[in-house]
Amino acid sequence: MPTANTPEPPYYAVIFTSQRSAGDKGYAGTATRMEELAALEPGFLGIERARGPDGFGITVSYWSSEEAISRWKANLEHRSAQEAGKRTWYSAYAIRIAKVGRSHGAHPENG
Amino acid sequence: MPTANTPEPPYYAVIFTSQRSAGDKGYAGTATRMEELAALEPGFLGIERARGPDGFGITVSYWSSEEAISRWKANLEHRSAQEAGKRTWYSAYAIRIAKVGRSHGAHPENG
Repeated sequence: MPTANTPEPPYYAVIFTSQRSAGDKGYAGTATRMEELAALEPGFLGIERARGPDGFGITVSYWSSEEAISRWKANLEHRSAQEAGKRTWYSAYAIRIAKVGRSHGAHPENG
Repeated sequence: MPTANTPEPPYYAVIFTSQRSAGDKGYAGTATRMEELAALEPGFLGIERARGPDGFGITVSYWSSEEAISRWKANLEHRSAQEAGKRTWYSAYAIRIAKVGRSHGAHPENG
């Protein structure tokens, strides 16, 4: 996936790290659906994700405000997925909400 | 890898996302060395990383202060690795410095 084409800071990041338990159990379909839903939320700026062969993954979503993050957290379909994640998909996870103050990089594929 | 066992916020995160170009070209050894070096820096709190089969990866390192991040960025051996990354290992990358204000999760493997 490309690096997210975020605007100049400040903006907010939700850093979600998780260890998948064995077996798909509906995970892949729901993960794709959640990314589609998140992208429809007001204030969504972009998303980046990676998961290695050990099942450890990081998803960082970027948002214009803390209010936008709260709305996304409270989205009913997302809440249902959060519960399934805790119950079924993840053996461990951490969520961190952070304010991005500086950024730099090189993104030739974003033009 | 386990989720990082970070303290209560506030603390800082360096979110590094990158797309690897083809071939190792010394990357794996340097990446391991950089993690070892970072862990020796004052103010280092932990690290999480994942890279998927598409070569897109995310590394998040956690720090007690922005000064600790600046010192790590300026570390001479790290600077050399940063240059090699831009020149050889990454076709695209982004670095975001963020202040973590809230966190929650479940980390059974961290006790």
